[in-house]
Amino acid sequence: MSFSWTCAATDGAARAGALSTAHGEVETPVFMPVGTAGTVKAMTADAVRSTGARLILGNTYHLMLRPGADRVFALGGLHRMMDWPGPILTDSGGYQVMSLAGLRRLDADGVTFRSHVDGSSHRLTPESSIGIQEKLDATISMALDECTAFPATEAQASDSMALSMRWAARSRAAFSARPGYGVFGIVQGGVFPALRLESAAALTAIGFHGYAVGGLAVGEGQEAMFGVLDITVPALPADKPRYLMGVGTPDDLLGAVGRGIDMFDCVIPTRAGRTARAYTTRGVFNLRNARFADDARPLDATCACPLCTRHTRAYLHHLFRCEEMLGPMLLTWHNVQYYQDFMRDIRAAIRQGRLAAHAAAVRARWAEGDDPS
Amino acid sequence: MSFSWTCAATDGAARAGALSTAHGEVETPVFMPVGTAGTVKAMTADAVRSTGARLILGNTYHLMLRPGADRVFALGGLHRMMDWPGPILTDSGGYQVMSLAGLRRLDADGVTFRSHVDGSSHRLTPESSIGIQEKLDATISMALDECTAFPATEAQASDSMALSMRWAARSRAAFSARPGYGVFGIVQGGVFPALRLESAAALTAIGFHGYAVGGLAVGEGQEAMFGVLDITVPALPADKPRYLMGVGTPDDLLGAVGRGIDMFDCVIPTRAGRTARAYTTRGVFNLRNARFADDARPLDATCACPLCTRHTRAYLHHLFRCEEMLGPMLLTWHNVQYYQDFMRDIRAAIRQGRLAAHAAAVRARWAEGDDPS
Repeated sequence: MSFSWTCAATDGAARAGALSTAHGEVETPVFMPVGTAGTVKAMTADAVRSTGARLILGNTYHLMLRPGADRVFALGGLHRMMDWPGPILTDSGGYQVMSLAGLRRLDADGVTFRSHVDGSSHRLTPESSIGIQEKLDATISMALDECTAFPATEAQASDSMALSMRWAARSRAAFSARPGYGVFGIVQGGVFPALRLESAAALTAIGFHGYAVGGLAVGEGQEAMFGVLDITVPALPADKPRYLMGVGTPDDLLGAVGRGIDMFDCVIPTRAGRTARAYTTRGVFNLRNARFADDARPLDATCACPLCTRHTRAYLHHLFRCEEMLGPMLLTWHNVQYYQDFMRDIRAAIRQGRLAAHAAAVRARWAEGDDPS
Repeated sequence: MSFSWTCAATDGAARAGALSTAHGEVETPVFMPVGTAGTVKAMTADAVRSTGARLILGNTYHLMLRPGADRVFALGGLHRMMDWPGPILTDSGGYQVMSLAGLRRLDADGVTFRSHVDGSSHRLTPESSIGIQEKLDATISMALDECTAFPATEAQASDSMALSMRWAARSRAAFSARPGYGVFGIVQGGVFPALRLESAAALTAIGFHGYAVGGLAVGEGQEAMFGVLDITVPALPADKPRYLMGVGTPDDLLGAVGRGIDMFDCVIPTRAGRTARAYTTRGVFNLRNARFADDARPLDATCACPLCTRHTRAYLHHLFRCEEMLGPMLLTWHNVQYYQDFMRDIRAAIRQGRLAAHAAAVRARWAEGDDPS
């Protein structure tokens, strides 16, 4: 079985379809919960599955340090290790090297860095990153790139993008073809349209199973991000999946789907779940707020997660106030459920040709805020 | 329906039977997972149920401070608040006042103390403790007592026990009879046989739905604890359940069941689950130990919990090393499952008249230690 994406319906630039992979089908547009170190934080794999999530993300940087790629390989790969038989996408490790690791030294061939955990020295090259992702048994591997800093001058962004394109070619060459597995290239170029187009053309010439847009959600703001998508997405092959890395808020997702993006990942739902921030159809609430202390209503009356069907806002407030682990556990579950339901509704709207009306209704409910009763 | 305990089988001093309560049946001997602040730490209520647990414990001291008894009452009681429809036993609050609260002042009528959370002033009397437990909707309420310090002179233990007996009478009088609800008295008297017998007689004269043995597992050691049980248990009514408070290790449980105890609670399985200590049929392991880093075996091959059926010791080691919440979540689940399976096997052994042989086999497997393969 070959790795493929098929388009079932379009609505403007938005597309609904499905990925076929060695580890199962995934309907798109899809949001991937982040399973950094081989676990979606505060959730069992069963709980993640129960939300409807079918594709999750693992972080190569974290996994190569702990437990180590060889160890994951010996344990049968990431799927078996974490009890997630479905597809897994891993990033290349490059982004976290830049954001977490110490004493980074970038050269034309790769990057040397020290572990943020124990200071040990490591090196990533396009070839070693792809090799590690293969040991992890990633269904989708990402090419090693340099996430261009923001802000950057056009000359800096150009040099950085050119390096990423050389690494993309080497990453593609290092990828071992296996039925149902794929490798994605990553468009860079900062906020500069010409560079983005040059990058998209370079990647298309190499040929990947899918194309990611990287270097966004790094401080440029939503308008600039959407501007880059408006330029970049039309330059990508129409028959391949498009992945906007590290994005984002529900509103970001609505806008990016409308611009033709098929895949997303972000720590927002899981991180927010640990800090008492609830994503709901009525907007975002901070459950530590004293106004929830006696609120006997479900967090979100439209949600079918265990938190919303079995507990009150008052109980969740109590759990966070007492720093009980069940607070983060239940709210992470809810937030991941919210994101999955959100994407399910978007997919249905695209198939029914009513994405714009759906997006307007969703935004209107957010703006309305919490039910005052 | 009245609160009752029926004996189905005996094996020496050990008894197998069942509690009938307003919130369902509970087979005994039973171990209660501790749900301190309205949550068994790191577990959903569903997960607790899945282990076979049918009776859990809540701490009045914690719940009266946060979220507060009136608030729990307004939320429909502890069962509804935490989604645990089964029976719940609450302690009186007295033990935690002595171990956690600040600026305690004990008088003949009750105890005044400051919250360890925010320094606010509170007071517990026999009447207020029982009233709070009623607001919490505790299936089984405990009489307010003073947990006699260890060590104590016989005079100190006598005075303390006498106070507890006066409070026991007041607690019993304050308890509102409701079908299927019960109140237990607590035997005190330190390690002094005459005091224990005096206390048991005093409580029996008052008349309770069950009898607890308190003031143990406070540093006196297992031998002294068993000595107190040998004296105390025969002095308690044979047709009522007997509860050894705050105990203990699996070995403590084996010994106490053999001496006629029917009910237990202890933080060991849940606390150990958060600190990487695993209770297994092969003894206790610390999963942080480096020897587990590449151990691809299940934690306990005889256990059916999600950790043991879906993950390796290496994965659990990895989760604890990375301080991932899933480590405490999965290991707490396992430890609670272990304790429930342990009690289920004890109940079966009593009914089949082979408790001594069963206990010997269980201890032999612990002594054997981990499978060396």
